[in-house]
Amino acid sequence: MEELKIVKIGGNVIDDEEDLVSFLKDFQQLNGPKLLVHGGGKKASEISKKLGIAPLKVDGRRITDKPTLEIVAMVYAGSINKTIVAILQKFGCNALGLSGADANVIEAVKRPVEKIDYGFAGDITAEGINTNFLRQLLALNISPVLCAITHDGNGQLLNTNADTIATVTAKSMSMYYDCKLTYCFEKDGVLTDANDDTSCLSTLNFSEFQQYLTSKIITDGMIPKLSNAFEALKAGVSLVEIKNAKNILQKSGTQITLV
Amino acid sequence: MEELKIVKIGGNVIDDEEDLVSFLKDFQQLNGPKLLVHGGGKKASEISKKLGIAPLKVDGRRITDKPTLEIVAMVYAGSINKTIVAILQKFGCNALGLSGADANVIEAVKRPVEKIDYGFAGDITAEGINTNFLRQLLALNISPVLCAITHDGNGQLLNTNADTIATVTAKSMSMYYDCKLTYCFEKDGVLTDANDDTSCLSTLNFSEFQQYLTSKIITDGMIPKLSNAFEALKAGVSLVEIKNAKNILQKSGTQITLV
Repeated sequence: MEELKIVKIGGNVIDDEEDLVSFLKDFQQLNGPKLLVHGGGKKASEISKKLGIAPLKVDGRRITDKPTLEIVAMVYAGSINKTIVAILQKFGCNALGLSGADANVIEAVKRPVEKIDYGFAGDITAEGINTNFLRQLLALNISPVLCAITHDGNGQLLNTNADTIATVTAKSMSMYYDCKLTYCFEKDGVLTDANDDTSCLSTLNFSEFQQYLTSKIITDGMIPKLSNAFEALKAGVSLVEIKNAKNILQKSGTQITLV
Repeated sequence: MEELKIVKIGGNVIDDEEDLVSFLKDFQQLNGPKLLVHGGGKKASEISKKLGIAPLKVDGRRITDKPTLEIVAMVYAGSINKTIVAILQKFGCNALGLSGADANVIEAVKRPVEKIDYGFAGDITAEGINTNFLRQLLALNISPVLCAITHDGNGQLLNTNADTIATVTAKSMSMYYDCKLTYCFEKDGVLTDANDDTSCLSTLNFSEFQQYLTSKIITDGMIPKLSNAFEALKAGVSLVEIKNAKNILQKSGTQITLV
């Protein structure tokens, strides 16, 4: 099977224009079919604040109410997505920005209201990914650039976590490609000491992950990221790594393995 | 040649959610390949005002400075474009939203600074339209939805008039399709009395247009719209009409003809 590289970048890279340009220059140099997924960064919060819309949280978890959805759609699908696409075009990478609504690329389900109403949050499964259209784009030598906005197929845009979009896209595309998934962020990989970049693990398997969970060495936001990583591997993604956005062309970071 | 319908909608339709949904329901019913171009509406100005960015004008003409470009990119390519695409998907129209940067669909040139510096305004020609990619989308039964954002190919997004995008796209696509171009707005067509909808002309040719210009019956914003219309006809677009966005399925409005 042909290789497909799926790279996810998060907020810190996006917030710094110089870092973003540098990352995109590297991304363009990745050979073969490739797909980029990007998160939001601080801009959505900054604009919310300026517009007087307070972030809504319940039990510490963000709720996407209607004004917040409006802002994330603008910032993710408009500002950030188009900025990235224009820069990639400059570097000779034929990028195409997509929300999940575009060509019905990602159909999500509005998260059911149980204890908490998360508002306009979209949950996705591999079945919701329009692999057919993504493959048609890749065959045209186009690199899809997915933002963290999906839709429900019934006219409603939804906010979906970018790590999850990268994971689920990799899972669904691994039917057709040898998928290699890279989560990029501001640290060098999975660290055993959050304040020490030299503590970066070069590999991490599932049983080690469970030990680190028990010993509380792996905590907070790294837990869902790693859960996503193992889920991708179980679904047939051939390589999953977590690395610094500055090092995507180098062998670096933490390679996640099942055993 | 196969027919391609190109429809442009402007601000008034976009500002009213009910009107917009109703228009998109009608648009979906147009048979065969179709492409939508949309303008901005009042939302960009409203958000500018809330963010404390004053509209910049020189000699009554709007200047796209950097903060304004940022806002129009968010509002046009993010909020409005994705809202339209999600609603079209609901109605079963496989829409794909595009800025000019996406797949390099529209490469523009930043307007040269002469007497006035228009800032990040993009001028376009038929050569700048990526007809190849638009034809590939149409062949996949996808309806492109173009917003009024272009790029310069060198990493810079630009603001381009939506009427001009519709016109130039129709001109360039008329090499491959029998193009029919409809400019929609809030009035019934070209009126000889701006305050009387019953004064709508059913046809208008070029010599009549010139007479109406001389007699100042046609004024203001209708002049560039009609100049665009005649330009399209001269370039081989087979039908150009100006009509109310409420009536796109009916024979109505003003048909523009060369003779």
